[in-house]
Amino acid sequence: MEFELIARHFTRAAPGAVLGVGDDCALLAPSPGMQLAVSSDMLLEGRHFSPQDSPAGLGHKSLAVNLSDLAAMGATPRWATLAIALPAADDAWLTAFARGFFRMADQHGIELVGGDTTRGALTISITVIGEVPPSQALLREGARAGDDIWVSGVIGSAALALAYRQGRLFMEQIDAAKVLPALYLPTPRIELGIALRGVASSAIDISDGLLADLGHILERSNVGAKLEFATLPTLPVAQAYLHEPVARDCMLAGGDDYELCFTAPVSRRDAVAAAAQSAGVAVTRIGRITAEPGLAVVDANGQALHFDRTGYDHFDE
Amino acid sequence: MEFELIARHFTRAAPGAVLGVGDDCALLAPSPGMQLAVSSDMLLEGRHFSPQDSPAGLGHKSLAVNLSDLAAMGATPRWATLAIALPAADDAWLTAFARGFFRMADQHGIELVGGDTTRGALTISITVIGEVPPSQALLREGARAGDDIWVSGVIGSAALALAYRQGRLFMEQIDAAKVLPALYLPTPRIELGIALRGVASSAIDISDGLLADLGHILERSNVGAKLEFATLPTLPVAQAYLHEPVARDCMLAGGDDYELCFTAPVSRRDAVAAAAQSAGVAVTRIGRITAEPGLAVVDANGQALHFDRTGYDHFDE
Repeated sequence: MEFELIARHFTRAAPGAVLGVGDDCALLAPSPGMQLAVSSDMLLEGRHFSPQDSPAGLGHKSLAVNLSDLAAMGATPRWATLAIALPAADDAWLTAFARGFFRMADQHGIELVGGDTTRGALTISITVIGEVPPSQALLREGARAGDDIWVSGVIGSAALALAYRQGRLFMEQIDAAKVLPALYLPTPRIELGIALRGVASSAIDISDGLLADLGHILERSNVGAKLEFATLPTLPVAQAYLHEPVARDCMLAGGDDYELCFTAPVSRRDAVAAAAQSAGVAVTRIGRITAEPGLAVVDANGQALHFDRTGYDHFDE
Repeated sequence: MEFELIARHFTRAAPGAVLGVGDDCALLAPSPGMQLAVSSDMLLEGRHFSPQDSPAGLGHKSLAVNLSDLAAMGATPRWATLAIALPAADDAWLTAFARGFFRMADQHGIELVGGDTTRGALTISITVIGEVPPSQALLREGARAGDDIWVSGVIGSAALALAYRQGRLFMEQIDAAKVLPALYLPTPRIELGIALRGVASSAIDISDGLLADLGHILERSNVGAKLEFATLPTLPVAQAYLHEPVARDCMLAGGDDYELCFTAPVSRRDAVAAAAQSAGVAVTRIGRITAEPGLAVVDANGQALHFDRTGYDHFDE
C-alpha cells in the first residue's frame, strides 16, 4: 500500500525513545527533573514554501523552523512528530525530503518518534519536544529597562533572497547566491539558546521579522526598545543594497531568519560573549530596552526612522 | 490583526502547564517517574470531514480521535497542541470549533498549551501528550495465542452513518439518527484504556476498521486471529441492515469507531469485566488469538466469511 510505503520513509530507530513510530503513540521517558518545551508549526505549500522548492531543502527547513522555537527557549531537542499531507506517494520526493529532515535531526540530536501521513495538498505539521532545567527556560517576558538587545548571526538575508526570488529586488546573481541559503537552509541556534540559559533575560527567534518578534518581547515584558539601524548585522553583500527601501525593510521586517533576538543585563556582556563563542556564532548588540513602551529605530544621528511594515503575518499576507 | 483574533480563541489558562500558549514553546513539568505517550494526527477537509460538518462537532472530533490514541495506550491525557489552517478568520466558526474542542478537552482533563494558525485550506493537526507508568502502556505487540479478543462499545455505527450520508446505504431517517452521533461525536475510551493497564495484553483503537486495526495487533504480535461475526457488538438498529453487504462491510472494515480493540488472557476475563464496569462501558468478546497467522472471520457454523475490503486507508481511498 502506498500508505505503508510512505511510513517507511519516516520509520527509523529512535534509541532515545522507549517506543518510536509504529504503535498508537510514541513512548518517551523524559529526563528526571527536566521540564519539557513543546512547539507545533504548520507549513503550507504556496504560503510557507513554493512547489518548486527542493524537497531535501524543505525537509531541512520544516524541522529547522521548529528547532528554532526550542532554541528560543534554551531547550535541548529530544523528540519530534511529523504529520504530512501529500498529493501523491512520490518515492523520489519522499526520499529527498526524508534525507533533508533526518540530516537536520541528526545534527541536533532530535528523534522522529511518530506522525501521520495522508493524501492532500502538501502540508507539513511538526511538533518538537525539548528539555530544559526548571526555571532556566528563556522566556519572552524577562526583558528589563536598560538591558542590551542582541541578535545572533546576520538578519535580513532570507527576506532579501525572497525579495529577489519574487522580483521585488534586483540583485546581481553572484550576490543573490550569497543570500539564498538563508532562505532555504536556515540554521536553528540550538547551541546558543542552551548557552544563554541563566544569561539572557528574554529571547525569541526571528521568524516574522525583527520588529515584530522583538515586539513580542516588549509586549510580554511591558517595556520598550530603541534600536540603532546602523548596528544591525547583515551579510556584507546586503550592504550594497541598503539604499533600496525594500532592502531596509528586509532588515527590520523580513521573516524567516531564525536567528535569536535576546536581551541581557549590561553586566552580562562578557557572559553573552562567552555563550556566543562556545556556540560558535556571532552576536551583535543592536539597541537597548527602555522603560517607556514603544519601539523606535534610530539612525546614527539618533533620528527616528519610519517603516511601513512591521513584520510578516501568516494570516494577513 | 486577524491572526491575533484567532489565537485568542485558543488561549486559555492551562493550570497544568508551567507555561501555556504565548511564548515560543509551552513549558510542561511531567509527573516524576511517568512515561509520556505522544501522538500526532492531521485531518483534512474533503478527506476526513466535509465542509458541511458542524464546526463544534469538528472541534469535538478532531480532539477525540487524538485522545483515542492515548486511550489505546492506556495513557492519562495531559497536554495538547493544535496547528490549524483556515481559509478565513471566521469568528462564528472559530467560536463554535473552540467550544467543541474545549468541551472534549475539559471532559478528559487535557489542556491546550500551544499551536499555530495560518491561512489555507481547512487543516487540523493535533498533537496530544499523555502520561503512563513505566511498563504499563498498552502496546500492539503483546497479543498471545489463546488470548481473548475484545472490543468496547459497538462497532460499525460510524461507517453506517457515513454510508447513509454518501447514499451507499438506504436507511430510515429514524434509524440514521441513531448512528449519526457515532460519526460526528465519537467517544475516546480514555477511562477504559487506563483501567486496562496490567490487564490487556495488547490494544489499539479502531480508526481504520476492525480488520485493519486488529491486523496491526496481529502483525506486531506475530499471531493470527479468528473472529465470530455474530458476536460483533452493534447498535440494535444496525441489525436490521446486516443483510446488506455494505452494512456487513461497515462492521468489519468501517473506520471512525474509535472503540478499543484489545486482547487479554482467558484468565483475566473477570479483570476485563471489572475494568469495563469501572470505566462505564460495555465490552464484548469477539474471538480468539491463534498461533497460526491470518485473520479469519467465521459465521455461527464456523464457516469462513469473505470480505473484499480490509479497512480504510487514508492514502488509497
